[in-house]
Amino acid sequence: MSYGRAFDLMREAAGRDWEAYVAHRFVEGLGDGKLPRAAFLHYLRQDYVFLVHFSRAWALAVVKAGDLDEMRQCAATVHALLAEEMSLHVALCAEAGIPETELLATEERAENAAYTRFVMDAGFSGDFLALLAALAPCVLGYGEIGARLMVERSSEDYADWIAAYGGEDYQALCRSVGLLLDTALERRYGPGYANLPVWRDLCRTFAQATRLEVGFWQMGLAP
Amino acid sequence: MSYGRAFDLMREAAGRDWEAYVAHRFVEGLGDGKLPRAAFLHYLRQDYVFLVHFSRAWALAVVKAGDLDEMRQCAATVHALLAEEMSLHVALCAEAGIPETELLATEERAENAAYTRFVMDAGFSGDFLALLAALAPCVLGYGEIGARLMVERSSEDYADWIAAYGGEDYQALCRSVGLLLDTALERRYGPGYANLPVWRDLCRTFAQATRLEVGFWQMGLAP
Amino acid sequence: MSYGRAFDLMREAAGRDWEAYVAHRFVEGLGDGKLPRAAFLHYLRQDYVFLVHFSRAWALAVVKAGDLDEMRQCAATVHALLAEEMSLHVALCAEAGIPETELLATEERAENAAYTRFVMDAGFSGDFLALLAALAPCVLGYGEIGARLMVERSSEDYADWIAAYGGEDYQALCRSVGLLLDTALERRYGPGYANLPVWRDLCRTFAQATRLEVGFWQMGLAP
Amino acid sequence: MSYGRAFDLMREAAGRDWEAYVAHRFVEGLGDGKLPRAAFLHYLRQDYVFLVHFSRAWALAVVKAGDLDEMRQCAATVHALLAEEMSLHVALCAEAGIPETELLATEERAENAAYTRFVMDAGFSGDFLALLAALAPCVLGYGEIGARLMVERSSEDYADWIAAYGGEDYQALCRSVGLLLDTALERRYGPGYANLPVWRDLCRTFAQATRLEVGFWQMGLAP
Repeated sequence: MSYGRAFDLMREAAGRDWEAYVAHRFVEGLGDGKLPRAAFLHYLRQDYVFLVHFSRAWALAVVKAGDLDEMRQCAATVHALLAEEMSLHVALCAEAGIPETELLATEERAENAAYTRFVMDAGFSGDFLALLAALAPCVLGYGEIGARLMVERSSEDYADWIAAYGGEDYQALCRSVGLLLDTALERRYGPGYANLPVWRDLCRTFAQATRLEVGFWQMGLAP
Repeated sequence: MSYGRAFDLMREAAGRDWEAYVAHRFVEGLGDGKLPRAAFLHYLRQDYVFLVHFSRAWALAVVKAGDLDEMRQCAATVHALLAEEMSLHVALCAEAGIPETELLATEERAENAAYTRFVMDAGFSGDFLALLAALAPCVLGYGEIGARLMVERSSEDYADWIAAYGGEDYQALCRSVGLLLDTALERRYGPGYANLPVWRDLCRTFAQATRLEVGFWQMGLAP
Repeated sequence: MSYGRAFDLMREAAGRDWEAYVAHRFVEGLGDGKLPRAAFLHYLRQDYVFLVHFSRAWALAVVKAGDLDEMRQCAATVHALLAEEMSLHVALCAEAGIPETELLATEERAENAAYTRFVMDAGFSGDFLALLAALAPCVLGYGEIGARLMVERSSEDYADWIAAYGGEDYQALCRSVGLLLDTALERRYGPGYANLPVWRDLCRTFAQATRLEVGFWQMGLAP
Repeated sequence: MSYGRAFDLMREAAGRDWEAYVAHRFVEGLGDGKLPRAAFLHYLRQDYVFLVHFSRAWALAVVKAGDLDEMRQCAATVHALLAEEMSLHVALCAEAGIPETELLATEERAENAAYTRFVMDAGFSGDFLALLAALAPCVLGYGEIGARLMVERSSEDYADWIAAYGGEDYQALCRSVGLLLDTALERRYGPGYANLPVWRDLCRTFAQATRLEVGFWQMGLAP
């Protein structure tokens, strides 16, 4: 599975940090059902707060886009997040016994703030590509995890979660975000972008975001 | 016609600047048909560039919103602008003989940049309310102009434009933006907001944005 | 010791979070000399990265200031940080055996990024006051800690650090930042600012920043 | 006179827009003394408002810098602007009979807002280089104008203004800003930066900023 050339290169550059993220104990626990329910519910609560800031980050991508195509793609993601994804998340939490009022009152954990605020600052202080590089580990990493667990899972306990990210809808989103990244890079830097110094900065942003995602899983294990 | 309490107060505070905007010669020319066609086409071309930055400004409002309700309302506006409004604009221009390739190549006039960049900076440098105060003259002023010309127009030449802004869809949008402004003010400053020093700053932002809108009409008259 | 009315109120509102910050085991270890040297050196390295982003945050305050006075005060802080504080920090580290090349290569820890990026986003997404509310726990908390340890310390091991923050220069800075906060609040919201809903948002920002400072100390203990 | 390679290339790409700016009638009037005094005083008032936003723009450059060197250079400019330049400007205006209270009350003209807000948005929405590209026409164009008028002027009427920008201090600043631009480009894009698509975007930003500077001079002629 590949979501595009740039993602492949960034993932490779992130090396062990990437492995620590996509094969984290939390992730394995989703696949083999050994993740304690309390940890999962705790994660869902934090993920609600995460989605609010994640939506803001994609809205910032609209602001920083270089042309109408980029604007439209990012705006469609904002729309999907706010009009659909969050409602689904609320429904999923309600099923799991967490009412929306409780979600709204969730106190944001430091590991959660660390990732989303890093993304926001990467976007505000950098440009469209810096923002995408910070967003990519989340969007595409979840896609990679979902696709792998669809095949490898040995338990049905978290099948819904796995299907949400491993299913075709989300996989299609990942391919389009991967393409957005490839296209945005070539549009600004030409086909040789990976030889430019700025590419190292983007890979560094991607790797730091990846490490902050590791912290997010880690937090998930400690309600 | 009123789009809410805050708008009424800001408009009143803007005084003659507001009159100079909503009763500008360009506007009167739309109503009585005396606006030269070349001026209108020139205005349409600039308005296309305007809409791009206007969409960015509403996306910035999503970023700066204080809660999910505010985020959702602003995101719906971004969606409406990028997914519908701009397509309508492109269609309207095509009918008028301006193909989209020409729109994309439009060189942005200084009076155009002045307004949209003022809005963007009001948002980036200030908060959600400063951004709304800078956006309000455009959104709500067009509503006021459209509603008045629906009644007062003496020519059918620009009936489509007038119907677009005077029609029920746009008027409903104006009422919801007016309400968003009222609600956002009370949510942050309570019912006595108009007595706070910050209110004067917001009125100043609104008035400066109004003057920049006057400049936009003025530019429209000089292709 | 008081650095102003707003700080007193915010600190009170932060309650136990504030205590957890200013009386953290790391802090007590600076006072009684029980903080392991390795932990201190690790903290110094992270603090170097911190100062870079902290300087950026004060530069953002210049961008978001409401008048020339506010701009000048924030610019003076940027100047002090970049032209003096960082050089002092580099000298202090060199004395402790950490050359500047090593400082530059420090990998930023998540707990470090969490605080500084939270501050940056508070500033970018909010206004000048939101930014000050996020900066205050660091600036003024270090002042409070320094002043207390000047009196209470039972060891000379970290006397230089304590003198840096407990000494008159830094205490004067704290008073002027406290005054800047008080003045900025009254300038925008009048003397009754603490009764406005927006005040609760500012206190929430202050409290969250305080909790992220607790995380920073916690990280200091775990090289 | 050259302030660096990138500036030379951008100026060339801006072509006639650059000529329209540096050889504007306002500029020629400063050299031959035919600029009416009222126009000059009007310009000075607007320039005061300009300097406030110009200082904010350089503070934003500190926020968006890629390393400590870039941060320090931009912070030194902020410091110079707020601590020195603005005081000189106030003194110059006082001599010309405009007290500072009057400067503070100046109503910002649209042509003034157009340039500064374009710069701010270029910075907020783009990256460090986009911000520099938008700032360059002002900083370096004034240097070019000053240097030329030092040699070519046929009147002493505006000798102080000419000396301020044609003098060695300002010329040295121009050389260092030109070097900052060259270095920042190479640091991110390598020596072949002028062959990348992003270079065209930067040149477009530079050219649009140049046109907005033309508008500023034009405004100067019409008090």
